[in-house]
Amino acid sequence: MKRISLLGASGSIGTQTLDVIRQHPEHFELIAFSVGTNVQMAIEIIKEFSPKLVSVNDMDAWKELKTKTSSSQHVEILYGEEGNLAVATIQEADILVNAVVGSVGLIPTLQAIECKKTIALANKETLVTAGHLVMEAAKKNDVDILPVDSEHSAIFQCLQGEREKNIHSLIITASGGSFRDKTREQLVGVTVDEALQHPNWSMGAKITIDSATMMNKGLEVIEAHWLFNIPYDRINVLLHRESIIHSMVEFHDTSIIAQLGTPDMRVPIRYALTYPDRLPYEAGNRLSLADIGRLHFEQANFERYRCLQFAFEAGKIGGTLPTVLNAANEIAVSAFLNKQIDFLTIESFIAQAMNRHQVLQNPDLPTIQDVDKETREFVRSLFE
Amino acid sequence: MKRISLLGASGSIGTQTLDVIRQHPEHFELIAFSVGTNVQMAIEIIKEFSPKLVSVNDMDAWKELKTKTSSSQHVEILYGEEGNLAVATIQEADILVNAVVGSVGLIPTLQAIECKKTIALANKETLVTAGHLVMEAAKKNDVDILPVDSEHSAIFQCLQGEREKNIHSLIITASGGSFRDKTREQLVGVTVDEALQHPNWSMGAKITIDSATMMNKGLEVIEAHWLFNIPYDRINVLLHRESIIHSMVEFHDTSIIAQLGTPDMRVPIRYALTYPDRLPYEAGNRLSLADIGRLHFEQANFERYRCLQFAFEAGKIGGTLPTVLNAANEIAVSAFLNKQIDFLTIESFIAQAMNRHQVLQNPDLPTIQDVDKETREFVRSLFE
Repeated sequence: MKRISLLGASGSIGTQTLDVIRQHPEHFELIAFSVGTNVQMAIEIIKEFSPKLVSVNDMDAWKELKTKTSSSQHVEILYGEEGNLAVATIQEADILVNAVVGSVGLIPTLQAIECKKTIALANKETLVTAGHLVMEAAKKNDVDILPVDSEHSAIFQCLQGEREKNIHSLIITASGGSFRDKTREQLVGVTVDEALQHPNWSMGAKITIDSATMMNKGLEVIEAHWLFNIPYDRINVLLHRESIIHSMVEFHDTSIIAQLGTPDMRVPIRYALTYPDRLPYEAGNRLSLADIGRLHFEQANFERYRCLQFAFEAGKIGGTLPTVLNAANEIAVSAFLNKQIDFLTIESFIAQAMNRHQVLQNPDLPTIQDVDKETREFVRSLFE
Repeated sequence: MKRISLLGASGSIGTQTLDVIRQHPEHFELIAFSVGTNVQMAIEIIKEFSPKLVSVNDMDAWKELKTKTSSSQHVEILYGEEGNLAVATIQEADILVNAVVGSVGLIPTLQAIECKKTIALANKETLVTAGHLVMEAAKKNDVDILPVDSEHSAIFQCLQGEREKNIHSLIITASGGSFRDKTREQLVGVTVDEALQHPNWSMGAKITIDSATMMNKGLEVIEAHWLFNIPYDRINVLLHRESIIHSMVEFHDTSIIAQLGTPDMRVPIRYALTYPDRLPYEAGNRLSLADIGRLHFEQANFERYRCLQFAFEAGKIGGTLPTVLNAANEIAVSAFLNKQIDFLTIESFIAQAMNRHQVLQNPDLPTIQDVDKETREFVRSLFE
């Protein structure tokens, strides 16, 4: 029996994590979870899974949830940062599934590592912003960081039974997102609704926009660098429209191992929860390559996808620059979703934030938090 | 340092095995080898690798080789079955690479297993003819059978770090061979030269004809059944023109792991020799999926490829039937290569041999040898 705490239960990865727990009550138990302000969902989750602890975003939601749960449910209710940390570090849990979006996932991850929790990480901003701190803490505490992103789960699966020294390169596949068939000229004036139509995956809003700009792939490159300890010049991005090959590892004997499947996030979530074992997924759709017929591949073009270029630059230079990249992107994407800026302005804001930043190497946590905050303020000042 | 004995040094797999040994003199040493009647090649191999023992097919070749080697080379020279067995079981070797073609590879494999040699098996007829005896002997002697065929090496690589209980199915890819774009009607009257034009791989004559009939894939299905302990209804054949994905394993959580690469047999040979490690292959061509652009897949059609159907039937019924399948195929292919029969007669002969055979279950070695011999005589009687 694995006992799970879940940060971000109401999001896309969160609800699918609950699906997996629901499918295997004999293997998984939900101990604690957090949601944002979706009190109704919190009530339903409490009813179904009887956790010990729940945290919501703010005091209003806390009050509402308090009122609507009965004392017979024996569930502790907290809110805010303190509540999130309590969920992440609750003693009874073996594994933390971090499914929140954005760099808000960083501190709970670090604290859970200190408490020796295995981390199932869907929150890529954590590693982008503070990869060196997270991986160092994981090593020191002998804690596994298990990837939940489909690409990193693919690479992680491909590496089972293999030796790190034999890796030649990582090949991260990219669908190209909702605008892959548009030229840069055609990106002028695209709408939020158009950007939210991802061709293969059903995901949250922020990651869908990140897919359209390819910043998502850029963040994944930085995440892969930290998770698998591979230099940036050995991480390649390959456009693959169908998202069937989820990523690959090339070894130095020229052999490539790939992981394939239908686009279903419950597969990598399950793998993180069952690793190193696998559990049958009866309800899952099996991949039929004969039905699909063809898979397409092409080189990713850095001129076309400037955010990908920014991410490689930020990763290679390192220090506080990936924090700037991520913070600027979070604010810019949020502004685009709120229809405050154009699609192409996202990358322009990120470029401006990166260009003005004086990089500090080996930043500690307070430095990262300062840079994160300062960058957000700067990018907000560009449109507010 | 791995010390290697090599059966079938002058064939396609044999010469490529020598290439691998040549590339890594610090890791591999050739202790003994056999060739057929190619004395000149034997002389060159002796000169380059200074082995302790060599075996040739017959006394004529033995006499010629004796005359042409000097006593200062300190190489023992034998011939015939006894010579092959001496090569297979020589005390100084750690691993036997069995690269001979046909069921002649069976007895040396069994004897090498008794002598606790690791077996790198390129001779698929060994497992087709007597898979139950070989795998039982390997288990009893705690000996690894390492596949050299690209498909089985692919599956073996995909299974590293995985648990047998989690396998849902094996997916063996097939190029379709030299006649894949022909209908059955168009196969009437095809020539030997046409059949020998394999679209992707450069291989020996017998296996290239087996690819054209898809019997090669059928033999691989039976081989996979024994190597990986998977029932036939969980082994699928997928047509894949480009031979880039060498094969795949589907797990019961719907995840698929695949091994990919350029068509270069030195990669699976190297893997068998370095397993569980990998060695850099500086001279190898790296796969670029962006350059290839597209991969194609389609269902294998049993009506079109009757030999594939025969192999599944023989495998499922088991007992002595796979021995009949293999022996009939060897004689029929040989007759086609000698222009004694038409291409489509190959499958007709196999069907006749299988139909008349009274299957014996759990055959011992003498029974298998009797059935093998009797089948060959029957098939020869059909055209001689």
